[in-house]
Amino acid sequence: MNALVGQSGGPTSVINSSLAGVVDACVKSPKVKQVFGMRFGIEGVLGNDLLDLAALDAATIKGLRSTPGSALGSSRLKLKEEHFGPILKQLKKHDIRYFFMIGGNDTMDTIHRVVEYAQEHGWEMTGVGVPKTVDNDLHGTDHTPGFASAARYVALSVQQAGVLARDMQRVDQFVIFQTVGRSAGWLPAASACVRHSNGDAPHVLLLPERAFDREAFLNLVADKQKKHGFVSIVCGEGITNADGSPVSASATRDRFNNIEFGAMGGTSAAMMLHRMLSNEFGWRGEFQVTESLQMCAADRAVKLDYDEAYGCGREAVRLALKGEGGVMVTIQRTSKPKEPYSATFGTAPLREVANHERPMPDRYIAKNGMDVTSAFLDYARPLIGPLPEYTALPKPRRVTSAASQ
Amino acid sequence: MNALVGQSGGPTSVINSSLAGVVDACVKSPKVKQVFGMRFGIEGVLGNDLLDLAALDAATIKGLRSTPGSALGSSRLKLKEEHFGPILKQLKKHDIRYFFMIGGNDTMDTIHRVVEYAQEHGWEMTGVGVPKTVDNDLHGTDHTPGFASAARYVALSVQQAGVLARDMQRVDQFVIFQTVGRSAGWLPAASACVRHSNGDAPHVLLLPERAFDREAFLNLVADKQKKHGFVSIVCGEGITNADGSPVSASATRDRFNNIEFGAMGGTSAAMMLHRMLSNEFGWRGEFQVTESLQMCAADRAVKLDYDEAYGCGREAVRLALKGEGGVMVTIQRTSKPKEPYSATFGTAPLREVANHERPMPDRYIAKNGMDVTSAFLDYARPLIGPLPEYTALPKPRRVTSAASQ
Repeated sequence: MNALVGQSGGPTSVINSSLAGVVDACVKSPKVKQVFGMRFGIEGVLGNDLLDLAALDAATIKGLRSTPGSALGSSRLKLKEEHFGPILKQLKKHDIRYFFMIGGNDTMDTIHRVVEYAQEHGWEMTGVGVPKTVDNDLHGTDHTPGFASAARYVALSVQQAGVLARDMQRVDQFVIFQTVGRSAGWLPAASACVRHSNGDAPHVLLLPERAFDREAFLNLVADKQKKHGFVSIVCGEGITNADGSPVSASATRDRFNNIEFGAMGGTSAAMMLHRMLSNEFGWRGEFQVTESLQMCAADRAVKLDYDEAYGCGREAVRLALKGEGGVMVTIQRTSKPKEPYSATFGTAPLREVANHERPMPDRYIAKNGMDVTSAFLDYARPLIGPLPEYTALPKPRRVTSAASQ
Repeated sequence: MNALVGQSGGPTSVINSSLAGVVDACVKSPKVKQVFGMRFGIEGVLGNDLLDLAALDAATIKGLRSTPGSALGSSRLKLKEEHFGPILKQLKKHDIRYFFMIGGNDTMDTIHRVVEYAQEHGWEMTGVGVPKTVDNDLHGTDHTPGFASAARYVALSVQQAGVLARDMQRVDQFVIFQTVGRSAGWLPAASACVRHSNGDAPHVLLLPERAFDREAFLNLVADKQKKHGFVSIVCGEGITNADGSPVSASATRDRFNNIEFGAMGGTSAAMMLHRMLSNEFGWRGEFQVTESLQMCAADRAVKLDYDEAYGCGREAVRLALKGEGGVMVTIQRTSKPKEPYSATFGTAPLREVANHERPMPDRYIAKNGMDVTSAFLDYARPLIGPLPEYTALPKPRRVTSAASQ
């Protein structure tokens, strides 16, 4: 009996740590003869493009635990009915009885459908999912491996750019950082974890969970800039207007009705906000669009994230060997807010994960819709870990007296 | 006799380390009674907005050595004739006999003109400049404090995004990273330091020192993508076409003659290249514009950079106390290529630094104009320091035989 493992969807800094967990656990089990890796996701199964992972030396597997990206390769193939026959043929050919994939809700749907098809056609196979996404929007788990490390990248970037913007306030009045995360606001929200004292960046958070309110935004921005001398804004890439249109696209239609714009290299929400503030206040400022750098900054990844990702991989194998298929491994936090962080593994049915998303709950979003609550900070801080505290000089004061001593 | 120190221009991760060096050296000298810091550059002198730095506790000064940004604040004030009188009045009032500024060539020009004016009006004052810029384009020095740390940020970003792009090649075909650096190519060039083996990112470097050649660029990009399955491109923000027009703006004129575009939040060269590749090859890909994050990523800063920045500050004070004014501190490399790095401090006349820029020399740029030479790698690698090596899985191979054992 052999095992097959694949990665799918966008990468994270720790998805390869989950892969190492699956391989290590399979190799240790007498039940599993061989462990195959699908190259480029399900495409590797269809094309019989598999890698004998058990044959890799221990150093390579260990190296995967701190290597960003998606070492087996990812795919954008959408499974169609005609694919299932050929897939089952390959599964039988390689005697695959344990089927693992590391990914998001689309991936969980793939596992569910492949296993279901196999069983309907008389092929006994156990499928277990390993959670992965920096977006942190998977149903049924406290958080998702990959989120903490991406959140730390966002937090460090916003903190450092905030210190710089404070010092450069006579030159530039604002800075905008755009996060990934599609329709979920977990990443922009995480930037709030860096505030150590009043006035620290970030000042304004734009979360996809709340419709963009131009007037309220401009009022808050003007207020913060007046108070602090500069304003730090963090926005999710997927923020939308009240009518559901993306802020990124809608703003471009203000001029020349330029619908080609999206094809010009991805107009971004941050760019549109930058334009808005430049036009509205005549300010100078910058926007920062780091895109997938958030998903692969291994030197900024969180140890807890690496360990949990690895643990989720091992747990998936443990469940499969016990015959507990049809589920995705989840992380269940056992510590209360303010307590030292602790968690245990759980499960969620693949079908449920496939059919749900998990936006930020209302209790984590401030009343004005442009900040987070302390409940969110209690949730996120243990995951991101401690952040640096930078030195600030005292506020300006005249020293005439001191000088005339 | 008192000393005055200021920071000017854009920040770096280590400019505050230079400030700490100036303050520590002044405090240790019996010749210097007080050390004042200008808030927001020369504006702080005009507005008598000074800080008594000697009065700060040692922990604060020490903290500055690892704090990004520009702790005293920066300014964009361009000195005019009418400013010099009021400035001299303040210098006399605070008995300033030692005048230090940390910055680039504009800053060196400011020091030169202020000291010259003071001396013409009978006020003896010694002025020394401390070099600072991530652009690495200052005349008379082997490199500039701030460059190595920004270069490391660029290198890590390009390396990590390259690993991700390799793994995502079935989804996206290219990734473009844009560096700062204005008309100098030192930062995009530095990304080449991350290549460990053939095929590693980056594949194409666009340096402002060479005119952008659309056809040559598209040919090289197509070739690299064919060879490696993806292509990693790094471009300087200031690349220009043969006619001297910026690539960032020119491409936008292809459509709608949209000259408003620049006001829409800074069109970028990376965005225009992204559009070019999407239109030309029908590829998917992304562009990354991190802007000033390159100038403040303290957690990615290089220890050598911190130490040299601090040393430049101390050296400036040593020179001033000896009466050797009118110069900027420089770093002179004493080690030969391949030898362990070593350097000593030197000087360059302020007027010379003010009137020169330092683009990449031809010997550092590859024949095709879109890569660097090994001579450049010998120059840059000791500054950036060792970079991580990530694990890669073997190239795909069929395992049918293995499976049928």
